Amino acid sequence: MAPFQLQSPLDMHLHLREGDLLSLVAPLSAHSFAGAVIMPNLVPPVDNAARLDAYRSAIDAAVGDAAFEPYMTLFFRPYTGDELEAMQSRIIGIKLYPAGVTTNSEAGVRALQEAEPTLGLMQELDIPLLVHGESTGFVMDREAEFMPVYEHLAQTFPRLRIVMEHITTRQAVAFLDRYANVFATVTLHHLLLTLDDVAGGPLAPHLFCKPIAKRPDDRDALLAAALSAHPNLMFGSDSAPHPRHSKECAGCAAGVFTAPIALPMLVELFDKHDALHNLQAFVSGNARRIYRLTPAPKAVSFVKEATVVPSQYGTVVPFGAGRTVAWRLLDAGQPPV
Amino acid sequence: MAPFQLQSPLDMHLHLREGDLLSLVAPLSAHSFAGAVIMPNLVPPVDNAARLDAYRSAIDAAVGDAAFEPYMTLFFRPYTGDELEAMQSRIIGIKLYPAGVTTNSEAGVRALQEAEPTLGLMQELDIPLLVHGESTGFVMDREAEFMPVYEHLAQTFPRLRIVMEHITTRQAVAFLDRYANVFATVTLHHLLLTLDDVAGGPLAPHLFCKPIAKRPDDRDALLAAALSAHPNLMFGSDSAPHPRHSKECAGCAAGVFTAPIALPMLVELFDKHDALHNLQAFVSGNARRIYRLTPAPKAVSFVKEATVVPSQYGTVVPFGAGRTVAWRLLDAGQPPV
Repeated sequence: MAPFQLQSPLDMHLHLREGDLLSLVAPLSAHSFAGAVIMPNLVPPVDNAARLDAYRSAIDAAVGDAAFEPYMTLFFRPYTGDELEAMQSRIIGIKLYPAGVTTNSEAGVRALQEAEPTLGLMQELDIPLLVHGESTGFVMDREAEFMPVYEHLAQTFPRLRIVMEHITTRQAVAFLDRYANVFATVTLHHLLLTLDDVAGGPLAPHLFCKPIAKRPDDRDALLAAALSAHPNLMFGSDSAPHPRHSKECAGCAAGVFTAPIALPMLVELFDKHDALHNLQAFVSGNARRIYRLTPAPKAVSFVKEATVVPSQYGTVVPFGAGRTVAWRLLDAGQPPV
Repeated sequence: MAPFQLQSPLDMHLHLREGDLLSLVAPLSAHSFAGAVIMPNLVPPVDNAARLDAYRSAIDAAVGDAAFEPYMTLFFRPYTGDELEAMQSRIIGIKLYPAGVTTNSEAGVRALQEAEPTLGLMQELDIPLLVHGESTGFVMDREAEFMPVYEHLAQTFPRLRIVMEHITTRQAVAFLDRYANVFATVTLHHLLLTLDDVAGGPLAPHLFCKPIAKRPDDRDALLAAALSAHPNLMFGSDSAPHPRHSKECAGCAAGVFTAPIALPMLVELFDKHDALHNLQAFVSGNARRIYRLTPAPKAVSFVKEATVVPSQYGTVVPFGAGRTVAWRLLDAGQPPV
C-alpha cells in the first residue's frame, strides 16, 4: 500500500509558548507541519513590533533548520493605522480575546464599540480578525451565546475576514454558512471528544481545554463539517502544552497538547470515515485560499502502521498518551519530484 | 447573639469507606451528626448479613464513644423474602445502582424487570429503596433521562418508599411533587456548585463528583427546594473522601468530601438566605418523618464566628479547603435541659 501524502499541511491555531516549552514543542510542530498560525497571548502579550520580532526570532531559533513558517499574529488592542501598516507584512492576522462579553451585557457591547475603529482599519488593510468567541456565561453556553457578536461583526465589517477560532458547537458550524466573510478553525480534539470524555468517567485533566468539549450532537456537527472539508473550515490544533504538574493538580490549566500527533490522528480519523480525499483541503487547501497563503512545498507521508503515542514529550503529556494510532508519520521531506 | 442550635442533625447519604479512610472520616461525621445513612458500595459490596454486621462493627469501632447512629444499607441484588426479613431490623434501606439503564435501552428495562420481584418484597416489608438515578447517556443528561425509570417504579410500587439520591437537576426537583412515595436527598455541594465551578475556570478536581454539578437553573431549583425545606427532601452529604493523590492525577476519582464542614456551611447558606428556620427540617425533621426515625438526642450549636476550612484532613482535601465560613461549630453535646 502506497503511503498517504499531504502537501504542506498547516496548523491554523497553535500555541508555542516561550522559553523551555517553546524549545520543546516548536520542533515537534515543525517536524510535520509546513507552517502554523502562532497565538500571541503571552505574558506580556505580543502587541507591538519589538515583541513581535523578538518572538518570531525565538521561534525561528527553536525550529532550527526545519522547513516551517510561523505565521505571526498580534494580540488585539486599539491600534493606529500607522502601527498596523508598519507591522502588516509581518503578521497574518490579529487575535481578539473579547473581555467581558456577555449576552446583553452593556460592558461587552462597550468593549466591542471600543474595538470598532481598529476593526475598521483592519478591514481597510485586509488584515484578518481571529476571535476567541466565548461569552462569560455558563461554560456550556459560552460559544453559542457569542454568535450574535459574530453576526454583528460580520454585518458591520462585511469585507473583514473573521475567523471563529476553535469552534465547538453545532451553532458555530451552522454559522459558517451564513456570511461569506466568516471562517473557522476546529481542533482535532473537538472532532473526537465530548464532555463525556472529560467528565463522564473519571475526570480527565489532559482532555480539559477551553472552549470545553460540548455535547455529542455538537461533536457530530463539527466532524461532519471537517470530513466534508467545508470550504470555510480549517484545521487549527489549538495545541496548548502545559507541564504535567500544571494539569494533574488542584487547579488544572486548560489546554490539550496535540501538535506532534495531530496529523497521524487526522489521517486515522478521515480514513475511518472514508474521507481521506478531503483531508488535504481541511489541513491546507482551505487555509491557503482563505488566508491567501503560498506555503513552501513540504510533502508529509503516512503509512498505515500501528504506532503508540508517547506517554510524555519532555514535561508535557500529549493527547492520547499511550493510545495506538493506526497511521504513522514518515519523516517529512521535500515534495516528490 | 445566642448560638444557633440544631437537634440531632442527620446525614442521609454518606460514604465512610473502610480501613484507614474509615478511621479518618467516621469520627468527623460522628462529631457533628446524630446519625447517617451509610452507603454499601464497598469492594466487595455490602450485600449479605455477615458483611453488613462486620461493616457495622467496623464503623462503631471507628466512631468510638461519640453519639452517632450508622443507618446501614444493603447493596441491591435479587434478595429472597427470608433474606430480607432476617436483615430488615439491621438496615434502613437498600441502595440500587442501576447498571446499564439507558433511555429506551432494552437491557436497562430487562435489568429493572429482574429487580422487580425484590422490589415487590421490599414494598411488602416496607423497606425503602435508595436509587442512584442516572442513565448511561451524556453526562449532563443522565439524571433527567432517568426520570421515566423513577416514574415506572413509583407507579409499579405505589407503597414502596423510593429515595432519589443526590439529585442535581430541576427535573428531579419537579418530580418531588409528583408521587407521594418519592423522596430525595440533596448534597451541600449541589446547592452551591454548577459545572462552571468544576470546569468554567481552571479544572477543579476537588469539586468533581457524580452526578456532576449541572446548570445554574438546576442549582437554583435545588437551592429553592432545600431553603424551603420541601417536605420530601432531605440533606444527604454524599461526602465521599478520596486521598489527594486520587484527585490530583490523570484520572481523578469522583467525590467531594464535605462531612466535617457540611453543617457550618449549611448554617451559613441558610442564614444568608434568611432560611435558618427551615434548616432543622432539612437536616433532620424531614428524614425522621420519611424514614420514621427517632435519633438519639444530640444538640449541635453554631456561633457566627468566621472560621477557615482546613486544607486537609489527613490525606483528604475537604470541600472549600482554605475558605472562610461565617459560622463555627461548637462542640456537640447533649440536648439542653
